[in-house]
Amino acid sequence: MKSRAAVAFAPGEALKIVEVDVAPPKAGEVLVKITHTGVCHTDAFTLSGDDPEGVFPAILGHEGAGIVVEVGDGVTSVKLGDHVIPLYTAECGKCLFCLSGKTNLCTAVRATQGKGLMPDGTTRFSYQGQPIYHYMGCSTFSEYTVVAEVSLAKINPEARHEQVCLLGCGVTTGIGAVHNTAKVQAGDTVAVFGLGGIGLAVVQGARQANAGRIIAIDTNPAKFALAKHFGATECINPHDYQEPIQQVIIRLTEWGVDHSFECIGNVDVMRAALECAHRGWGQSIIIGVAGAGQEISTRPFQLVTGRVWKGSAFGGIKGRSQLPGMVEEAMQGKIELSPFITHTLPLSAINQAFELMHTGESIRTVIYY
Amino acid sequence: MKSRAAVAFAPGEALKIVEVDVAPPKAGEVLVKITHTGVCHTDAFTLSGDDPEGVFPAILGHEGAGIVVEVGDGVTSVKLGDHVIPLYTAECGKCLFCLSGKTNLCTAVRATQGKGLMPDGTTRFSYQGQPIYHYMGCSTFSEYTVVAEVSLAKINPEARHEQVCLLGCGVTTGIGAVHNTAKVQAGDTVAVFGLGGIGLAVVQGARQANAGRIIAIDTNPAKFALAKHFGATECINPHDYQEPIQQVIIRLTEWGVDHSFECIGNVDVMRAALECAHRGWGQSIIIGVAGAGQEISTRPFQLVTGRVWKGSAFGGIKGRSQLPGMVEEAMQGKIELSPFITHTLPLSAINQAFELMHTGESIRTVIYY
Repeated sequence: MKSRAAVAFAPGEALKIVEVDVAPPKAGEVLVKITHTGVCHTDAFTLSGDDPEGVFPAILGHEGAGIVVEVGDGVTSVKLGDHVIPLYTAECGKCLFCLSGKTNLCTAVRATQGKGLMPDGTTRFSYQGQPIYHYMGCSTFSEYTVVAEVSLAKINPEARHEQVCLLGCGVTTGIGAVHNTAKVQAGDTVAVFGLGGIGLAVVQGARQANAGRIIAIDTNPAKFALAKHFGATECINPHDYQEPIQQVIIRLTEWGVDHSFECIGNVDVMRAALECAHRGWGQSIIIGVAGAGQEISTRPFQLVTGRVWKGSAFGGIKGRSQLPGMVEEAMQGKIELSPFITHTLPLSAINQAFELMHTGESIRTVIYY
Repeated sequence: MKSRAAVAFAPGEALKIVEVDVAPPKAGEVLVKITHTGVCHTDAFTLSGDDPEGVFPAILGHEGAGIVVEVGDGVTSVKLGDHVIPLYTAECGKCLFCLSGKTNLCTAVRATQGKGLMPDGTTRFSYQGQPIYHYMGCSTFSEYTVVAEVSLAKINPEARHEQVCLLGCGVTTGIGAVHNTAKVQAGDTVAVFGLGGIGLAVVQGARQANAGRIIAIDTNPAKFALAKHFGATECINPHDYQEPIQQVIIRLTEWGVDHSFECIGNVDVMRAALECAHRGWGQSIIIGVAGAGQEISTRPFQLVTGRVWKGSAFGGIKGRSQLPGMVEEAMQGKIELSPFITHTLPLSAINQAFELMHTGESIRTVIYY
């Protein structure tokens, strides 16, 4: 079938809105009509060419919501008309990782997904007869996309897609990191580095966890109002200080924070986040994605004196098991999504969404079809 | 009073056996007659001059056992004749850290201890009228030493000092890191980098925890027999492989190990230890002490895909609360100490103990007075 899509033909170039061909879903696959999609920094990161796993031409987008229009052979967990969120972290329920009870990093479709292919090693997208690659197993920048069954969370059909699409990545990643990875407890002190969609979601998660003090850090003070709306108790601009930011935070908290979160992808900030963690037990969670080949470093003394360095992917959330519940929470107002959505644009204007993100004007732009 | 002691007058020089003056214990202090002391790599590290906190002249030694001979004003937890192990990690029971329930890193005497001084900011040792500094709050290379009350574990007087002195550092550090820091569970796979006293104690701790597979790694195959005695299921010499050791271990285990321990103090090995941890949940514990200014590094992707980087000091053990129980375990044969002791020498031959350690001939030399 034909589908309108925004195609990334080459790194660094604007997306082109074209009509692509979408092949029918094969066994274990599902054709989804995307209704809405967020535009995330990770899409921009891959489009820039800095992502070592980026393949082109591709249909980007991984923060969407939609409706099932066709299922391939053997698909049992979703049917025509079901409302779904595509998952870039699959959940097969059968692999070593799914069965471990310790991680959400399912390996069912990992090898092919990283290459921009469906699990059988081929692509369902083409343009003028040439193959177009998938992206993160989702490719939500196409009105019609094909997704593996294990990569679909079935959600409440009453949910508002234009909001819950954000649970496909950023908001879930931030809130999940607080509850699943850091396990923030009531009264804990938290520092959040970077107040984009993920950082703001971390702030919201920390407030849900009744953290005692939520320190929000960004070099753009325009983000502070929203951070305070979500629960930040203090907002800090590192540019206001001569000393390194980790020293500022240690001074403000005496020994450092119980939990810090890096929500940018900057390896220097990752170091600062680790080093402002509390001596004896503070932990730092890396959420941001760093550029190819970049490395984190610190003195090992930081760890020997009790700090813990961790990471979080998709907030440690198992998509098929846990995302439907998060959609319910959003519907009940327990997760607040609308403040993240600063702009709404049609697919035809998707390049504007990238510009709004680069200039820092938007938190999230939601694209509708 | 006069005391025979091995004094480190300057970095890089051999210790000199001299008669020093020991002032009486002040309030909250205890005079201890040391009967035995181990010689640990940390003593050699400080003596080398590489330790940024090293001060000279000093009386080194921090792995001892002895008997209380005099108590200062206000001391209530020990009395004349009590058998004790000096603690380089104090336990005051009152500070933020002791009360947290999350760490053993008491701060009661930390600031002065790091400067080679007693809590009042002065030293009890002198030689020909010149002050001699304390070391790690212990200074067990002196027949008589003064230790803060909060830095003394009272132990069973039936314990054999020539063995349990090893619980003052190396063996406790290794066993404690397994149980307190890593919390190794039955069936887990463990990798141990470096088979000195601490590494071998980690192997012993892993066997106590019923780890399924205990992979011991050292470039000196002469250590392998003892590692197997303590419970190693495989011994690996990195020199036998072309590939980096982390790749070897991932190949052998498919996805990496549940827990890895760095017991050397080499920042490159710390990286290897982290990177051979299991995707999704593997954790790596840094125990070794790196040289001044050295840093650890890795790609943040290693953490984002589920690995956790931690450190451990004194095995996470609270000395006054927990060390007496470990002494009991040693007396009951639940902790095996004698295989660590490869050499026994009088104080007059202490420099030979450093040589035996440098050449890799000894695991531990125990010095008697």
